[in-house]
Amino acid sequence: MTQRIANETELIQTYLVPLSAGAPGALGLCDDAAFFTPPAGCDIVVTTDPIVAGVHFLADERADDIAWKAVAVNVSDLAAKGALPLGYTLALAFPAPPEHAWMAQFAQGLAGAQKAFGCTLLGGDTDRTPGPLSVSVTIFGAVPSGTMVRRKGGAPGDAIFVTGTLGDAALGLALHREPGLLADVLTSGDTGFLCGRYLRPAPRVELAPLLHRYATAALDVSDGLAKDLGRLAAGADARAEVAFKSLPLSPPAQLMIEADARWAQAVISGGDDYEILFSVPSDQMDEVQAASATLPFNVSCIGRLREGAGVTVTNASGESMALGIKGYDHFS
Amino acid sequence: MTQRIANETELIQTYLVPLSAGAPGALGLCDDAAFFTPPAGCDIVVTTDPIVAGVHFLADERADDIAWKAVAVNVSDLAAKGALPLGYTLALAFPAPPEHAWMAQFAQGLAGAQKAFGCTLLGGDTDRTPGPLSVSVTIFGAVPSGTMVRRKGGAPGDAIFVTGTLGDAALGLALHREPGLLADVLTSGDTGFLCGRYLRPAPRVELAPLLHRYATAALDVSDGLAKDLGRLAAGADARAEVAFKSLPLSPPAQLMIEADARWAQAVISGGDDYEILFSVPSDQMDEVQAASATLPFNVSCIGRLREGAGVTVTNASGESMALGIKGYDHFS
Repeated sequence: MTQRIANETELIQTYLVPLSAGAPGALGLCDDAAFFTPPAGCDIVVTTDPIVAGVHFLADERADDIAWKAVAVNVSDLAAKGALPLGYTLALAFPAPPEHAWMAQFAQGLAGAQKAFGCTLLGGDTDRTPGPLSVSVTIFGAVPSGTMVRRKGGAPGDAIFVTGTLGDAALGLALHREPGLLADVLTSGDTGFLCGRYLRPAPRVELAPLLHRYATAALDVSDGLAKDLGRLAAGADARAEVAFKSLPLSPPAQLMIEADARWAQAVISGGDDYEILFSVPSDQMDEVQAASATLPFNVSCIGRLREGAGVTVTNASGESMALGIKGYDHFS
Repeated sequence: MTQRIANETELIQTYLVPLSAGAPGALGLCDDAAFFTPPAGCDIVVTTDPIVAGVHFLADERADDIAWKAVAVNVSDLAAKGALPLGYTLALAFPAPPEHAWMAQFAQGLAGAQKAFGCTLLGGDTDRTPGPLSVSVTIFGAVPSGTMVRRKGGAPGDAIFVTGTLGDAALGLALHREPGLLADVLTSGDTGFLCGRYLRPAPRVELAPLLHRYATAALDVSDGLAKDLGRLAAGADARAEVAFKSLPLSPPAQLMIEADARWAQAVISGGDDYEILFSVPSDQMDEVQAASATLPFNVSCIGRLREGAGVTVTNASGESMALGIKGYDHFS
């Protein structure tokens, strides 16, 4: 199993074709294109978010984690738009032919993501590259026609909600890079939880019905809360005001911040949360709380859209906190 | 204009947003995903074929040619399936922020391809990479439900047709790499034509109605005629037999082969033709010829599917010719 895969055909037939089994239009990955029949009365929602070794994941990450993340970050974009995943294409660029064991684990990661998120491999491309490993997923989902939830649409007065907990992934990345950090404060279970939140993002696909019913706007928190709050605010021509004490934190994240308050910055500006940020008319806040009771994650009200522009995060004394690096810029 | 682009927002707003103007569901590229409403009664056909500097194009190629090729190679896959292009996503990975002049030329190439092929930019992603420039297009097209033309479907007895002319791109690549080659034989017009066929593939989108009416199977010739004939033959559980003298050659390609018969290999196994290879029941050959009269390119019958397996290309004496490298393997 440490043997390298001989050629493109072997890689596709052995590891990728089984992942297309649920999609008749994938044609067993033996055609130049795939097809799917759009659900009646639906729009197709499409997004693409490639991940590259050394940029979006670390070279030492497990192949199944890399594969999971490649699908999950795209599913997260669909989830924030209220779309249910249908299928995806996958373009792989390898610096060297992978070993069988690596590719088997990678395929397991894809299979796990497909099962968790309800989508199937439709097609793709496999290439060699002089650069680092790159995994490019383009994903398709469906929403009832005309109902894709947008970034733009909130208004001053709307309440701001977020799913799950914030900052875990950025803290997990810090722990993944420096194992043993805060070992006097965190149990191995705490560390494992935070690292898992970095390595295995859990897109909130179950939020779709609630978003369609209540959200005036939504996006996923991938580039850090401050930056993505700024986008929600800009889409509402408003200012986003949140109180730090309202931000949902996991118990391990709380422990880290209690040990060193500087970790609070990870909650405000750390990336890779893959939670969903959305705005709701203020008279529907209670309904949202009630509707969220059956979801497998929490939904928390963290603040309000106000007249103005920009983002304010206040501390316990009501003072504005620094927004830090304002999240990851993909480019500069 | 030799100034580098400052950040992702500037790149997207200045150069990419105008390309999304025709698609309301692209939302001005300011959301996390795009949507489109599938044409009624249609299947969505999807394909992805990224191109990477040093692998699929040369570092010295013009930005508009690179952009054109990135779209064209994907449109070619749609065309071979009888699908009409709708829209595409674009993921760009840059080793360094591009200069304004480069990006302006790149956007012009995309605009030209969009106009030529009838598709619009829907969304995408922009990133830095430690590797070479990579341009990843995923494209969506439409066919009437259940009618995507497949690789599989031919049968022994079917006639084999191909569009346009073969080998030009491989010869153009040789000339692009070694300017002045065969300067005693080729005019600068000949050289320009062949290089243009390499740099600016012209996918045969106009073939769709003919394919739907007559083709039992089709694929585009991207990895060399011999290799793609092998795929057509395998899909028909048959052997493909073609005569070299039936292969359609451009006048400049003919000149090169007359000057040195070894260039014939470019016609048999050179890549990047982006012509369409298709099979037709033998009793409909004349109808295909008649139907092709109004197309802006030639359609030529080059041989037959026979009982058996594999590919045979015969020379003027009826002997089997070498199939050469059997085309480009993307992987090994």
